[in-house]
Amino acid sequence: MGKDNARTGLQLRSLAKKSGELELSLVSVAIPDPAPDEVLVRIEAAPINPTDLRLLLWPADMSTAKVSGTADRPVVTARIPEGAIDGITSRLDVSMPVGTEGAGVVIAAGSSPGAQALVGKTVAVVGGAMYGQYRNMRADQCLVLPAGATPADGASCFVNPLTALGMVETMRREGHTALVHTAAASNLGQMLVRICLHDRVGLVNIVRKQSQVDLLRAMGAAHVCNTSAATFTQDLTSALVETGATIAFDATGGGTLAGQILGCMEAALVSKDKEFRHYGSPTHKQVYIYGGLDPSPMQVTRNFGSAWGIGGWLLYPFLQRIGPAAAQTLRQRVAAELKTTFASHYSKEVSLAEALQLDNIVVYSKRATGEKYLINPNKGML
Amino acid sequence: MGKDNARTGLQLRSLAKKSGELELSLVSVAIPDPAPDEVLVRIEAAPINPTDLRLLLWPADMSTAKVSGTADRPVVTARIPEGAIDGITSRLDVSMPVGTEGAGVVIAAGSSPGAQALVGKTVAVVGGAMYGQYRNMRADQCLVLPAGATPADGASCFVNPLTALGMVETMRREGHTALVHTAAASNLGQMLVRICLHDRVGLVNIVRKQSQVDLLRAMGAAHVCNTSAATFTQDLTSALVETGATIAFDATGGGTLAGQILGCMEAALVSKDKEFRHYGSPTHKQVYIYGGLDPSPMQVTRNFGSAWGIGGWLLYPFLQRIGPAAAQTLRQRVAAELKTTFASHYSKEVSLAEALQLDNIVVYSKRATGEKYLINPNKGML
Repeated sequence: MGKDNARTGLQLRSLAKKSGELELSLVSVAIPDPAPDEVLVRIEAAPINPTDLRLLLWPADMSTAKVSGTADRPVVTARIPEGAIDGITSRLDVSMPVGTEGAGVVIAAGSSPGAQALVGKTVAVVGGAMYGQYRNMRADQCLVLPAGATPADGASCFVNPLTALGMVETMRREGHTALVHTAAASNLGQMLVRICLHDRVGLVNIVRKQSQVDLLRAMGAAHVCNTSAATFTQDLTSALVETGATIAFDATGGGTLAGQILGCMEAALVSKDKEFRHYGSPTHKQVYIYGGLDPSPMQVTRNFGSAWGIGGWLLYPFLQRIGPAAAQTLRQRVAAELKTTFASHYSKEVSLAEALQLDNIVVYSKRATGEKYLINPNKGML
Repeated sequence: MGKDNARTGLQLRSLAKKSGELELSLVSVAIPDPAPDEVLVRIEAAPINPTDLRLLLWPADMSTAKVSGTADRPVVTARIPEGAIDGITSRLDVSMPVGTEGAGVVIAAGSSPGAQALVGKTVAVVGGAMYGQYRNMRADQCLVLPAGATPADGASCFVNPLTALGMVETMRREGHTALVHTAAASNLGQMLVRICLHDRVGLVNIVRKQSQVDLLRAMGAAHVCNTSAATFTQDLTSALVETGATIAFDATGGGTLAGQILGCMEAALVSKDKEFRHYGSPTHKQVYIYGGLDPSPMQVTRNFGSAWGIGGWLLYPFLQRIGPAAAQTLRQRVAAELKTTFASHYSKEVSLAEALQLDNIVVYSKRATGEKYLINPNKGML
């Protein structure tokens, strides 16, 4: 392509204005020719992950959302609550592309052999701005999907699979032998169930509903505890005694759950250790918060001795900590088990314009089990 | 001493009964002759630390306390609230000696030269059962006090000094350059002020009252924030901007303080870093809870990104982590600076019997600034 005939593509943008308004829109952006070591990917599948919802919508009050513009180019506006704006000053009045990860087909390449070799291949990519028709990527950062895999198969190759593997890796590196996971019926939770079954790692799944218990049990999960059950505390303690889990990954972050998990871990440890300990069990108990499904304050009743920690856990700092070689090992496992361990399920595929329809926003912003959306930025465009 | 003429001594005991009653009493115990490598210390000063109060009183409801027995041998009983008994099953019906640390005079010694060399010396000791007239200790575990130091001078040689030094050491080992301390007007807090002034380490002191602000400012503390001030959040954030503190040690543990500290640390970091970060500042922010002055649940509003941790911190596991050589370096500093950096102040010296008088219990169990008690188990006995 010559420079006179530069390619353009639609891209979804989130703009938080100083005036207190969030604006979502589609803009047409110029797509430069790929550099020598780059390829141009036509994105055909990009999941809406909780991390994307945060950049897309947070902290707007979506109950105030209105749509204007045209069917092809809708514009959504919503009010940002007063006070909430202080937390996002550095992004105010900056139009931000969205979409952590995705997959598509390489339709052009730079001059390097590595880039040229990818032309026509279906690849998975990560790095932001995936809710757009085209994305230039460094060739060596593309994950080539196995033969027969579609962009939808490879859309969620990074965030959920690497987070699930990262939990098990963190468990091992910090000296624990089994783990607890909350919101365990999610796509990520189902991957974790399959990883732990395969690797013979004890896993205690915490869910909120009987239907989620049934789903995970049908997958072969041995320990599923339902927070809605009257026997939840006893169920969890028993599962912790059986597995010996002393580390948990919590997607909710709010309310009493993190503290309850620590309390039950302590009860499980003390039940095995008859000696009186002035400060409780000396075994370290850890809860990592990796999501914010429950935005209410965290409430912790400290009934679990002094060997405990609660902290934030995030994929990218984890990958940095373990280093490129260890991270590459995890990525290779994802590619090898893409259609088994790391299979994702989506309830709906939408175009960029459909992603800005209020009835869709209402559904995908709930982050409910079984309601995960996939954006195909080239749906209806080809 | 022949075996027929064995020495006996009074010892304070805490007994939590299965029936739901806590009983404090003085019992007469036989004091064996010291083994070859041991010395017999006549304990003349032992502080009542929060850690001792925990073993002595917790979880009894001391508003129900009654005293019986005689003036020389009082017996205090109090009710243990239903439910609280589950947390202490392993100590039920076990009569426990109390008193973490103390100091006194070596009045007898085993046959080894190391033990014999200590006869007549004033030594500081740690290891429990210090609320008693006599304590056998291994000679190599005694800290000989400098000439002219009294048992009262050396009574608090371990818990507070090593905890204060351990905070600064933890700060350094975890890559922080300044620290925050709550309940900062305590004996321990005052030691920390002196350590940080000497070592030129940035320290943000958090207190509850103007009189505590005045006390610490008079000692030379540069940053003292009062939670009772309307400007507390801004004051704390400014102090964090100035010092760069990203680690805190909190003696309270309950309520909103730990979360507020993390929130202000994040605000201080973000104010220096204009780039928009999806998940907040990447700098790790840590609060260690080392006490439980506020037994209410901890409430944390997560407005501080994802690089954070809250956890328990305790002296003995810390000393184990750093190893004997590093621990010895800390102990030597305490001995060298006993009457300066590590000087303690007590509001009252009581005998063992006086320690069981209700009017004294009411005062020392408050753990209030300036109300620290010293027990002299040999007061009136010599």
